[in-house]
Order: sequence, then structure tokens, then C-alpha cells
Amino acid sequence: MRFSEEYFAGQMKDITGSAIRDIFKLLGKPGMISFAGGNPSNSALEPEVVRTLASEAIDRYGTNALQYGGTEGLPGLRAGIADYLRSTAGVCCTADNILPVQGSSQAFDLLLKALIDPGDVILVESPTFLGAIQAMRIYRAQLIAMPMDEGGVIIDEVEKLVKQHHPKMMYIIPTFQNPTGRTLCLERRKALAEMAAKYGFIIAEDDPYRDLRYDGEALPSISSFDEEGWVVYLSSFSKYIAPGLRVGAAAVPHAGLLRKMVIGKQSSDVHSPILTQAIVELYLEKGLLPGHLERICAEYRKQLSAMLEGFSFFPEGTQHTLPQGGLFVWAELPEGMDAMAALNRAIDQNVAFVPGAHFYPDGGHANTLRLNFSMQEVDVIRAGMERLGRAVKG
Amino acid sequence: MRFSEEYFAGQMKDITGSAIRDIFKLLGKPGMISFAGGNPSNSALEPEVVRTLASEAIDRYGTNALQYGGTEGLPGLRAGIADYLRSTAGVCCTADNILPVQGSSQAFDLLLKALIDPGDVILVESPTFLGAIQAMRIYRAQLIAMPMDEGGVIIDEVEKLVKQHHPKMMYIIPTFQNPTGRTLCLERRKALAEMAAKYGFIIAEDDPYRDLRYDGEALPSISSFDEEGWVVYLSSFSKYIAPGLRVGAAAVPHAGLLRKMVIGKQSSDVHSPILTQAIVELYLEKGLLPGHLERICAEYRKQLSAMLEGFSFFPEGTQHTLPQGGLFVWAELPEGMDAMAALNRAIDQNVAFVPGAHFYPDGGHANTLRLNFSMQEVDVIRAGMERLGRAVKG
Repeated sequence: MRFSEEYFAGQMKDITGSAIRDIFKLLGKPGMISFAGGNPSNSALEPEVVRTLASEAIDRYGTNALQYGGTEGLPGLRAGIADYLRSTAGVCCTADNILPVQGSSQAFDLLLKALIDPGDVILVESPTFLGAIQAMRIYRAQLIAMPMDEGGVIIDEVEKLVKQHHPKMMYIIPTFQNPTGRTLCLERRKALAEMAAKYGFIIAEDDPYRDLRYDGEALPSISSFDEEGWVVYLSSFSKYIAPGLRVGAAAVPHAGLLRKMVIGKQSSDVHSPILTQAIVELYLEKGLLPGHLERICAEYRKQLSAMLEGFSFFPEGTQHTLPQGGLFVWAELPEGMDAMAALNRAIDQNVAFVPGAHFYPDGGHANTLRLNFSMQEVDVIRAGMERLGRAVKG
Repeated sequence: MRFSEEYFAGQMKDITGSAIRDIFKLLGKPGMISFAGGNPSNSALEPEVVRTLASEAIDRYGTNALQYGGTEGLPGLRAGIADYLRSTAGVCCTADNILPVQGSSQAFDLLLKALIDPGDVILVESPTFLGAIQAMRIYRAQLIAMPMDEGGVIIDEVEKLVKQHHPKMMYIIPTFQNPTGRTLCLERRKALAEMAAKYGFIIAEDDPYRDLRYDGEALPSISSFDEEGWVVYLSSFSKYIAPGLRVGAAAVPHAGLLRKMVIGKQSSDVHSPILTQAIVELYLEKGLLPGHLERICAEYRKQLSAMLEGFSFFPEGTQHTLPQGGLFVWAELPEGMDAMAALNRAIDQNVAFVPGAHFYPDGGHANTLRLNFSMQEVDVIRAGMERLGRAVKG
């Protein structure tokens, strides 16, 4: 008898992997200008700094850098992250609330493992992050889309959905959202924290872009308004330091919930590598982050401007967001235009993007596009937007 | 309303974490001789080598060491692991069959995610590895214990269980098993591979100790007898190079199953850190492993001998295994003696071990102990066994 696909578990049977990975396969083509990814700029990465910090990590931890470590993560890293999240995002936490993990994706996966039974309802922005949609589907959650406007999810509509569906969780990216670049406004942040406590649901506040701000004033996190332990704040150093290190964290107000996430991690990968944890611990401890963020934000600001200007090449009636930070701009072509068809013409002209339909849990919205500006230089962005404008017009 | 434990998901509600972690908390006591852990010896770890390789990894990959990487892992590491597993364990694989992961624990977790529905039966050795028991329970598998003798699981008994319970999977540690130190003999390896193909179940062959052999001839893996794609071979560099790097791998014969595991990993942590993958890639490529294994096996051999000699301090009628490798010895006190009670007396005398009852999925076996010898020097092992003998006698 041969092994066959019939043996797959129910939770994985219909999960076919990220649809946009197929787009990424086309990006190797010579001369391709890609607005499709979501990576930081290569020029924002600091291999020489990491080389030095890796060596200092060995100085600091010696053989302990290579031994088994605690699932809860390095104490110094937990403390450093707690300081960072308190001071930048207003998250009310100490080291004991922090679980360092492999990027905020793992934090979300562990939160789902701790809380979600098949059929549980999770409210999500519509559109939202593709990776999160896949993670929630593996846990067989039922996703309910929250309507949005320029200021993020619409509170009255959300409250109606809460009353109707009794969600166990809300998944939200409040700052420079992926894919739209939108930011949830201040009063709505407060309102969501209050709603979670009133009705009793967890808010997974995924906030990996917040310190990539190029304009306007920083807003306090939803978590900063949480008084009853309902908001789990997910952070990541992927966009600030380096995604390849795979270091992110959850700030978990409830000790019992943190413990369940620790047990989930223990059973899935025992602990994160000590070396990569120690590199981020040292990066924070040496105070390297503020200066680094200032430098990369100055570059990203120029790239964003170039992209926004490039919409002059697009058909009349195209709408787009005006993000104050992050890595993405979202565009809506005039009704009736098809971004999927435009993608094929764009690929022929050596420019790529992700059709927005992929980001809607319920599909539809064929006339939308997500554009990333962080991976291309300013001149290339201009040239790419011109090509893309042509391709869209058909 | 405040968040409370009622919100936990069914799969995590009754999972309380590794029971032996409580024992580990006692080990910080000054003067404590611990036979409780399962770590490699500190003297087997090479911080200077890792420092150099981390720097060479930056030379090789530059900013790519810090960018997002593929979920499938570094191509050079996949190829290096495939060569290694083909030549040492007879696993029939190429780079395309290899999924590098965060230790073999993550490989097993991803395999469970891909295959196990609640209620599915998994056959396990009895006793078996505690971490695996917890992982299987989170996926709500039904564990059925396979009886063992000195040569590992007893084939006729296993076949009866297969016919009766129609397992989806067997989890087995065939070489220097944790916790017993036993090795499954050659004919039984062949018989299990044939049985899996005859009845149609996956064998998760967890083999992280195989190259820590101090005596006797290496045996081919169960996987080497698999012709129909039923054996997934789990390997790890935790015991050979360094657990803190968190690098292990699955060799998966069926491409569709590997793809499901990749999707599971994508959704849980996107990918493993590039730096730690590249360190192991370079370690293998430079041919450092054979010489290193020879050096550490020479030390571990002496430690194992000292421990076996130390059973002279134990009560008459104590039985123990005679492992040819690995990190553990298993002891059975005369019927009626209680290892749990002995542990309390042992802790008072500054020596620690893990009562064997923890490793049985169905409990019982109060007179058994697991002893680890890799973390203590030869003289300390002697002194510790003398103390432990006294404590056991009460």
C-alpha cells in the first residue's frame, strides 16, 4: 500500500498555502520591478552589526548560547521588549508578560492554539493579512469580516457583529495595516478595548509596522486602553531590525493565558534559538533601535512619496490610500476594472503587484491592488508605476 | 468583564506542561548532582566554532542572512542534511525530501498537524518521550502503548494492536531510546517498515541520538526499509552540535505530505532563522561533524561506564538497561519500591533523577527511574550514584 493524500488531517486538507507565493515565483525574471512583496529594504539591513552582536552574544552567554534554554525566552530580552513596548506603544507590561517568539506569526499561532476551538468566531478586518487568514483557517475558526473606512473598522458595525456572532476573538492590525496601509483612529482604539471588556472577547492586536511612521503623530495601542486583560499585543522586530532573525513577541496580560502559550510553544519547538534572541537583546540594550528607525524611515518616506506620485499614471477614478507609515499602499481601480487581468499584462511589462482580492476572507473586490514600496529605489518606483499604469489601462 | 480560563480551547484545557519541569526547578540548589536532564555536556559545545561560523554565514549570505527566507529552508542545508542522512542512517532521500525545522520536536508537531484528527490512534512505545506525549495530546490523538522488551517493541504484539486499533501513526525512537536507552533490533526495524506498508500507517521515526554510539555496530534506520513512503524520519542536531541553535529536520518521502508540513510551518513561524540554518549548513559542509562526534562519544562512553558501575550502590534486584549509546540509562527497582518517594529523599541528599512513571502514557511503573549521565563528570557520577543508592534504599 502506498501513502496517499487521503491521510491528511481535516484541518489541513483544504489548506493549499499562500496564493501569493505563486506570484513571488515570477519575481526572479530579469528586469522585473516588484511591488508584490512585503520585505524590508535590503539597505535597511545591517549584516555588520549582526556579525558583531552575534560575537558579543557568544561572549555574554558562552556555552549557554548553545544549550537548551527556557521556553519563556531570555530574561534580558523579555525585559528589553517590555521596556520597549511600554515606552513606544503604551502597553502596560513587565518582563513577566512578554513571550519572545519566532516573529509575530508564531505569537498569533500560539494564541489561536490556546483559545480557538473549531467553529469559534473571529472578527477580522476586510481586507486583512493573508498569513493570518491561513492560520485562523487551520484552527477552523469562522471568520467574520468587519467593514472598514479610511479610519479603520467602523465601530457601530463591529458592535452589531459582536452581538450577532459572539466572537471569541478579534484579529486586527491597527497601524499602517497590511494590506491597506490604513491606521485605526484614536477613539476607535479606545472603543474596541471597551467593547472587548463589555462583551468578553480577546483582541489580537498585531502591530508590526507601528514604528515605521513617516508622518503624523504616533497613537497609543488598543492595548494601552485595556484594563481587564483582553488585549494581547503582538509585536515583531522583522520590519525594524531583520525578518531573517525571526524574533517577535506577545505581550499577554493574563498569566494563565501566557502559560498556555508557553506550553504550546514547548510542544511545538521547545524554545527559540538563543543566538537570535541574544542578538535582539543586545540590539535593544545598546539603544541602537531609535537611530536605526530614524534612518530607515527617512528612506521609506521618500519611497512612499514616489509611489503616491506614480498614481498620476493610473486611470482616472483610481482611488488609493494615503498611509502615514508602514510598507503598503492600497488602490481601488474604477469599478469594473479587473486587477487579476491587469496582473498578467503587468508581468508581461516586467512589473508585479498583488491583486487585492486575495486579502478578503470572502473574496470579491476584483478591482483592488496592494502595492509595496520598500523593496525598490525611488527611481525604480517611478518607472514601475508608469509601467503599471499602462498595464492597468490595458 | 475580566478574561478567565474558561476561554481556553478544548485542545489546551487539560494540558498543564511538562511534569518534569517541576523537578528541573530544584536543580539550581547548590551542590545538587543532577541525573534529571537530557542536555548535552557543556564540554561538548563549541562556542568558538559557532562564533566563527556565524561570521562566515554573514560573509556567505550578506543581507540575505537577514531577509525573509523560504519556509522550505536553505537549499545548501537541505542538501547537506540529505547527504548526511543517506550516508549515516541509510535514509533514501534527496534535498527535496528534507524540511529543516526548529529541532525534531517541530518536525513532529508539523507531522501531527498534517495528519492527526482528534481521536486518531497513535501507537507509542511504553515508556516514551514526554515531550512527544504532550504534543500528541494537544492534537487529541488516542495513544496506544506498545509493549517492549530489551530489543524494543515486540512485533507480534504490535501487529495485534494494529489490527485492533487501525492506527494512523506510530511514534517510535528506535535508537538509544528516551527514556530507556534501548535500541530496536535489526529484524524488528525491517518488520515495522513492512507492517506500515501492509496496513497503511505512518511511522514517525524519531532518531536524534543515533550517532551518539559508544559500542556495537550502527543499524540502518527503519526508513531505510521503507519502499512505499510510510516512514518520516526525524533528525536533530541538538545532541550532535548544539540544542540552542534549534536545528533539526524531517526527511519526508511523499512530496504532498512535505508540502502540507511546509504550509503548517509557514503558518506557524514563516521560516526558521537564516543565521542558525547557515551555521549548521557550514558545519556539515566543512566536514566538522565526524571528528566532533568521535571526541564527544569518547567522553560520553566514560560517563556511561561510570554510571553503570554505580548501580553497585543500588538495592539487590535492581535491573537496568545496558545502552550502547545515547544519553540515558533506565532502572527498575525491586517490585514494591517507589521511585517517587525515593526522589524526595534523593533531593534531600542533593541528587536528582526523573521517576519513570512520567514516561508511561498510562502511568504506573512506580519503581522505575530515568538517569542521564551526559551532564556530569565521571567523578561526580560516581559520587552521585552512591548518594542515589542510599536514597533509594531509604
